[in-house]
Amino acid sequence: ACYKVAILTVSDTVASGAGPDRSGPRAVSVVSSSSEKLGGATVAATAVVPDEIEKIREILQRWSDVDKMDLILTLGGTGFTPRDVTPEATKGVIEKETPGLLYVMMQESLKVTQFAMLSRAAAGIRGSTLIINMPGNPNAVGECMEALLPALKHALKQIKGDKREKHPRHV
Amino acid sequence: ACYKVAILTVSDTVASGAGPDRSGPRAVSVVSSSSEKLGGATVAATAVVPDEIEKIREILQRWSDVDKMDLILTLGGTGFTPRDVTPEATKGVIEKETPGLLYVMMQESLKVTQFAMLSRAAAGIRGSTLIINMPGNPNAVGECMEALLPALKHALKQIKGDKREKHPRHV
Amino acid sequence: ACYKVAILTVSDTVASGAGPDRSGPRAVSVVSSSSEKLGGATVAATAVVPDEIEKIREILQRWSDVDKMDLILTLGGTGFTPRDVTPEATKGVIEKETPGLLYVMMQESLKVTQFAMLSRAAAGIRGSTLIINMPGNPNAVGECMEALLPALKHALKQIKGDKREKHPRHV
Ligand code: NA
Repeated sequence: ACYKVAILTVSDTVASGAGPDRSGPRAVSVVSSSSEKLGGATVAATAVVPDEIEKIREILQRWSDVDKMDLILTLGGTGFTPRDVTPEATKGVIEKETPGLLYVMMQESLKVTQFAMLSRAAAGIRGSTLIINMPGNPNAVGECMEALLPALKHALKQIKGDKREKHPRHV
Repeated sequence: ACYKVAILTVSDTVASGAGPDRSGPRAVSVVSSSSEKLGGATVAATAVVPDEIEKIREILQRWSDVDKMDLILTLGGTGFTPRDVTPEATKGVIEKETPGLLYVMMQESLKVTQFAMLSRAAAGIRGSTLIINMPGNPNAVGECMEALLPALKHALKQIKGDKREKHPRHV
Repeated sequence: ACYKVAILTVSDTVASGAGPDRSGPRAVSVVSSSSEKLGGATVAATAVVPDEIEKIREILQRWSDVDKMDLILTLGGTGFTPRDVTPEATKGVIEKETPGLLYVMMQESLKVTQFAMLSRAAAGIRGSTLIINMPGNPNAVGECMEALLPALKHALKQIKGDKREKHPRHV
């Protein structure tokens, strides 16, 4: 099995060209080095969008519905400033919430810094795509991935479903 | 006081007769052995439904509105597969969320296994009925009940309300 | 910077004159003694309302939209009784959820008492106002504030936004 991962940097600064994307490349590297633990994962797409709810929503939908990504990680836009709308965009497109993933990311992030309580990250499933908000801080991406790794491969496998699950008579 | 508890096994496999219900009987036994700590609790109904949102919703509503159950425990259907819809059915019928119950169940479950982060359990109040999603794993039922027991009796008492609460002038 | 804080006691008992407001004055004192850590905070308004969703909602909206409070703390109405509707009122007016604040309040409160799992507190942002539900128990107010203090000043600063955030080209 090989899972397709997409990474979305959400940042006015990066999108406008006013600053470099530090989180995106870090996330690519974290996913690549976690590939085996994820059951085989490859970064199939990356993009940068400004902190605008419609633009975030549009690309999350396209990556889920058209490009059939297995996992989308968003980076940034989860804080308390007026421009931070990544969780709202995410909640607008997911069909099922996955609160346990948020719990462990919060639990582990708080061990690093108490400012983690300011994360408003959302996470959930749309179709067969898992979407997880991560902080914009490049170091935080690794910490959050670390928290999820023990169960993320199993999560991706479950989301794909399988005949046995769908037709229990045939189990 | 004696609280009426209903236990709903949510499983395509069990509902179709393709496999035995291991969680339901375990939950009955857990409730029975916790009866005293719950202020007197008796299992007043059990049922099995497939992983179908309408069927889950229908029985949750009937057990709440018609049969006036005090506590409903659902078992299973809280994972990441396409058929897992118990939390969505539950969120569709509850009027008030009870996130603290989810917090302690997650906290305690994670001590047993990191796969607990894949629980998408919901919980809340409909009328005077408390509805709590528990995992389908038979062992997990006991662990989750253990986490809730220190406050569950008080929760059930509060939900029933009382004259003092409703008519504060008479306190 | 000086932040305006409003404190809302939600209680049928207090609103009807049947009992004294023990939580309100305690919250005023907690905010005052935390003022420095909050970057300068002053209690600009206090009020008492009964446990009625419309009345709670109305004052939260006025304090946010008209009086431009930076922080609103509600006290009480977060439990499991039929009259407890403060979280529902709050969720009806916030535009963005702030789940990390709830996580740390729950985490710290559970260290004091397991009954903390019965808190259904909500929290979020409306415009440039942060609204946080706290328990009605006077001691709990201090405990919850303690949990939030490490990041609350930063939260209030972020909510105000700033030109740099809004116009990233000028960073
Ligand atoms: Na925790």
